[in-house]
Amino acid sequence: MSGILRERAVRDAAARMWPRADVAERRARVARAAWSILAEPGDGAAGRLVAALGPVDALCAVGRAEQAAPGFDPAAWRSAIARWRPRLAEGARLVATALEAAQRRGLALLVPEDEGAWPRQLGDLGDHAPAALWVRGDVGALLGLERSAAIVGARAASGYGEHVATEIAGDLAADGIPVVSGAAYGIDGAAHRAALREGGPTVAVLAGGADRVYPAGHTHLLASIAESGAVVSEVAPGTPPTKFRFLMRNRLIAALAGATVVVEAGWFSGSLNTASHAASLGRPLGAVPGSIVSATSAGCHRLLREFDAVCVTGSADVKELLGLGPPGDRGVGDAREDPTVTRVADALGTRTWRTADEVALGSGVAVAEVEGVLGMLALEGRAQRDGATWRLAR
Amino acid sequence: MSGILRERAVRDAAARMWPRADVAERRARVARAAWSILAEPGDGAAGRLVAALGPVDALCAVGRAEQAAPGFDPAAWRSAIARWRPRLAEGARLVATALEAAQRRGLALLVPEDEGAWPRQLGDLGDHAPAALWVRGDVGALLGLERSAAIVGARAASGYGEHVATEIAGDLAADGIPVVSGAAYGIDGAAHRAALREGGPTVAVLAGGADRVYPAGHTHLLASIAESGAVVSEVAPGTPPTKFRFLMRNRLIAALAGATVVVEAGWFSGSLNTASHAASLGRPLGAVPGSIVSATSAGCHRLLREFDAVCVTGSADVKELLGLGPPGDRGVGDAREDPTVTRVADALGTRTWRTADEVALGSGVAVAEVEGVLGMLALEGRAQRDGATWRLAR
Repeated sequence: MSGILRERAVRDAAARMWPRADVAERRARVARAAWSILAEPGDGAAGRLVAALGPVDALCAVGRAEQAAPGFDPAAWRSAIARWRPRLAEGARLVATALEAAQRRGLALLVPEDEGAWPRQLGDLGDHAPAALWVRGDVGALLGLERSAAIVGARAASGYGEHVATEIAGDLAADGIPVVSGAAYGIDGAAHRAALREGGPTVAVLAGGADRVYPAGHTHLLASIAESGAVVSEVAPGTPPTKFRFLMRNRLIAALAGATVVVEAGWFSGSLNTASHAASLGRPLGAVPGSIVSATSAGCHRLLREFDAVCVTGSADVKELLGLGPPGDRGVGDAREDPTVTRVADALGTRTWRTADEVALGSGVAVAEVEGVLGMLALEGRAQRDGATWRLAR
Repeated sequence: MSGILRERAVRDAAARMWPRADVAERRARVARAAWSILAEPGDGAAGRLVAALGPVDALCAVGRAEQAAPGFDPAAWRSAIARWRPRLAEGARLVATALEAAQRRGLALLVPEDEGAWPRQLGDLGDHAPAALWVRGDVGALLGLERSAAIVGARAASGYGEHVATEIAGDLAADGIPVVSGAAYGIDGAAHRAALREGGPTVAVLAGGADRVYPAGHTHLLASIAESGAVVSEVAPGTPPTKFRFLMRNRLIAALAGATVVVEAGWFSGSLNTASHAASLGRPLGAVPGSIVSATSAGCHRLLREFDAVCVTGSADVKELLGLGPPGDRGVGDAREDPTVTRVADALGTRTWRTADEVALGSGVAVAEVEGVLGMLALEGRAQRDGATWRLAR
């Protein structure tokens, strides 16, 4: 068995955190917690190893570092071990600290073995799926996110962007559709706040530990989200957010939600990264357009042009992305009227009374057909008849 | 021979209009003029008949109305004849009047037989191609429109829309790319004016006769367009514009230009009709996004969402649509840096000096790799070294 699992401090912390779990379950949970610490988010070798051996045996395999695990060629194995070794040496301390912090701050550890509670759609991430999720708030809020919408966007949002995020997220929440976002300033915050205002479920996915308040100005917002929904992270409590972890966090948002909508984004916005994760996962992707002279819409226009994002102009479009709305098959322009009818109507006036022959001359429609169309227009109240002459109804 | 071609007034007018043409050419031109009068724009039976027999024999075939022309079943033939008969009876008078008006107002009649001058791309309209074009201004302006852009949109444009149309059309014209539009108020007018201001070629396609000023407020604009470019119509001089002719005119704009861009359009805007013609002709179609709370952008967003229009945010995008610009292959978001480099940089601080081991612990990257990345960051001037410790360059 791995040194981490044998360590007294780890076993004590695990016993306090999961007093009712049996030894095997407790060991599996500790092993998952360890993997969420040893490997950075999205480490494919870690995911592959855990998927092949289960979390406990995967940890033991790392303990026997000199012998490559089944399915790993020696070079890939050496590279993975070298990557995990710095933290492995500190592993027991790091895991015990994380479990103690989780217990102290009331965080739950959700693992794939939690049947019926683990969000299955994360499996679409394959080897890059998280080992576990640390949850502040209601673990149940993570269920049913297949039909949630990720509403994300620029931190430096414009008034327009915040307005749109508020309207769309508010509408969705009012209809019971959960809103997933990243709790950042700007669009993310507006989306969470609008969902909360409607009493709708909302989930914040953080790049740092779920116990950490990031950004600092969102202390109360994060507390409100945790009260009615959930604040989630795949990294252990206390872990600081880093640029890399933000990028990896974005893949979690995209994978958790049923569709991703970018409301505002600059040309290099991080939300374009979320969008590209959604696209590569085959999740529907939407972008809200805006003025082409606004820098905060440039990224959205890029998504529309280069990444085939769907143009989203309201919550109805988001529901359609989620497969919840009516199909959008509507005709184009004014051409829906039968062109012959249009031509006959064109040739009538509201003042002059005209014979069918005159209307036929003016419209280039056969006289017999003109008479039929005139009759129809009269039935619809669009034309008036006086003997053998016609005019448009005023 | 058809009665129209034999009529004295017609022959006199034709002789005055084309004094140097031989009899055969003159007859062909008169026949084309007659077809542009007898049939409404886009009449497929007329197009098919003229394509099969040539304009003169097609006219003669109509004279022998009781006998279906080759390739027509009796019902289709009867229906076509019934459609053309009202004007056929007045044909000679209508044609003579049109030719006299054209000569008086200085309009040219461009026909497909004008090799090297007729815009060949109109052939993409098949049987719905115009029989002829009546041109006020420079017939040469119709050449090279394969690489022109149609810039169209709402009459009731917003300040934003007029600004965008002006910028895009001005840029294109400055680069020698012709701007085609419909001379309407709003977007069309802004596009023509911007092109004129840059001294660029611009072509207005009208729904009524090319000699008619429509809309009335664009008298001077149409005169300016005719001075340096061309005002064009497929209907004879004097013909009033009708709703049907506007819809048909839109197909001409779409077919003449190399790409169509809708700058602003309401939900039911006529420019959506132009867009659908462009799409069905396989011409590239672009739409300029705008605020989702602006009614004048709703039609553009509809094009983006439902009709796969390309999101256009500037003249560079229009050039790309025309195949004149650079390909738009750009990466997404912040993820372009090697993720390992990002992780190592994340684990460095600007204040604290850290060893490679500490950076490995913080980043979850193998120590050996950390040292390599640190060296690279130092070379790039992004990291500083002090003995065995490192920090980010300030």
